[in-house]
Amino acid sequence: MSLKNKNSLIGVFDSGLGGLSVLKVLAKNFPNEEFLYLGDTARLPYGSKSPETIRQYTKQNLKWLADHNCKVLIIACNTASSHFNENNFNNIPVYNVIEPGSEMALRASKSKVIGVLGTRATVQSESYVKKIKELDPQATVIAQACPMFVPLVEEGWSEDPITNLIVYRYIQSLRSKNISEHMDTLVLGCTHYPFLKNSIQKAIGSHVQLIESGDVLSSKLEEDSQLGRWIKASSSDSNSDNENTSCAKIYLASTDRSEFFEKLASEMLAPLKPQKFELVNL
Amino acid sequence: MSLKNKNSLIGVFDSGLGGLSVLKVLAKNFPNEEFLYLGDTARLPYGSKSPETIRQYTKQNLKWLADHNCKVLIIACNTASSHFNENNFNNIPVYNVIEPGSEMALRASKSKVIGVLGTRATVQSESYVKKIKELDPQATVIAQACPMFVPLVEEGWSEDPITNLIVYRYIQSLRSKNISEHMDTLVLGCTHYPFLKNSIQKAIGSHVQLIESGDVLSSKLEEDSQLGRWIKASSSDSNSDNENTSCAKIYLASTDRSEFFEKLASEMLAPLKPQKFELVNL
Repeated sequence: MSLKNKNSLIGVFDSGLGGLSVLKVLAKNFPNEEFLYLGDTARLPYGSKSPETIRQYTKQNLKWLADHNCKVLIIACNTASSHFNENNFNNIPVYNVIEPGSEMALRASKSKVIGVLGTRATVQSESYVKKIKELDPQATVIAQACPMFVPLVEEGWSEDPITNLIVYRYIQSLRSKNISEHMDTLVLGCTHYPFLKNSIQKAIGSHVQLIESGDVLSSKLEEDSQLGRWIKASSSDSNSDNENTSCAKIYLASTDRSEFFEKLASEMLAPLKPQKFELVNL
Repeated sequence: MSLKNKNSLIGVFDSGLGGLSVLKVLAKNFPNEEFLYLGDTARLPYGSKSPETIRQYTKQNLKWLADHNCKVLIIACNTASSHFNENNFNNIPVYNVIEPGSEMALRASKSKVIGVLGTRATVQSESYVKKIKELDPQATVIAQACPMFVPLVEEGWSEDPITNLIVYRYIQSLRSKNISEHMDTLVLGCTHYPFLKNSIQKAIGSHVQLIESGDVLSSKLEEDSQLGRWIKASSSDSNSDNENTSCAKIYLASTDRSEFFEKLASEMLAPLKPQKFELVNL
């Protein structure tokens, strides 16, 4: 991979492809940046692994990104986020999805009754519940595991009548929980879920605000660049060989060779076009 | 685990819970036997791993079962089966699902046009296609990947209108393939799929015979016991503490601690009741 400048990229990793939803929003909001995405597809899912193993994998992924000239490191994986709370790695700023997501949900909510949708592992770990209650002990969090959402997205059925039925069923289950009638904010606590955003918004109703990691991280990064925690690329930094200079450059890497990864990644990122795929041995 | 007799058990392993469909059929057909089931849940899914890694995991699982007094070893995992063709391990007979499944499909089919449903990994590996064509070069095999089936079973939605819709969609896709109109036999090429048998049979029509691994292995084991390859337990071997002596005894083990595993395993095995759960560190 020929990445010209030292400390020039924004590194993003996830256990699989879900983090591409985060990457997509970041790329839109920071069009002058270059992004390096690492999907640890050979070792997914992280949800069923022990905390020690998840931390070890997370550090390996961060190290690989740090070694490839990243100036910012983003953990776009809920499971990894709940096992790595540090704000820096090798003196590079690190962002996870749980802390800023919890902050934003609390800012958005008037009733302080917040819903969370996540994988079975994320819901069982109570990572959002703990973080939100730590930030505001008066808040109430109701969580719903939605194990079918990831396979639906990976099957490419994000816009599909079957998906609507399944989304509706999980939302009904969330609605049946105590005091759910006061919920005004819903955290999409899995990076795959923004691909189902339209369907989720329709099922939950327009009065409930959805919180997604890509928006959350974009706000946080913008704030922190103004505080000088990292330095944004200017438009003159963009490569001259980039035909459309208003588009962020994206490099993709994964730990498992798979045509399916490349195909699905391209579909998920569309209309953005990744520059290059690389296989990484961690 | 107190397993009284040396070489008294039938050992079954799968990367996860799917192999319980095989165990359930075997337990019904061999009510005097005791079964030891190992789910390698910490390391699933096998489908995305390299052939060397899958072989290594398979051997570790077989060794653990062999060390726990098994007289027969069954690989109830399609991915592992396609990477371990040997018929014995430490002088204990080993059975995989692909070879007998392919044999039975060819025996059942008149048209020699055989369908196979499997995970994306199994379909891509073409393990059934290769084995069936090796046994009968004139046969035609059409395969369909059904990535949503495993999550549907694991969500406990085996009997559900949503499941029927999804099954119908995959079957329509199989039916749209060339010469599918002559298909008279359909291999359920993933151990989770027998839990969706009713729905699949309805969608494909009663003129197509379904081939499932549990039936296939029962026939093969029955045949081989008559050939003296292994010795069946007699009814007098059954434990006196077993209230219902017409029921096989079942012990469960997994490599990952999970309440979900125990709950789902119990649901999948019902009405059979496993005796004991154990956590194994491989």
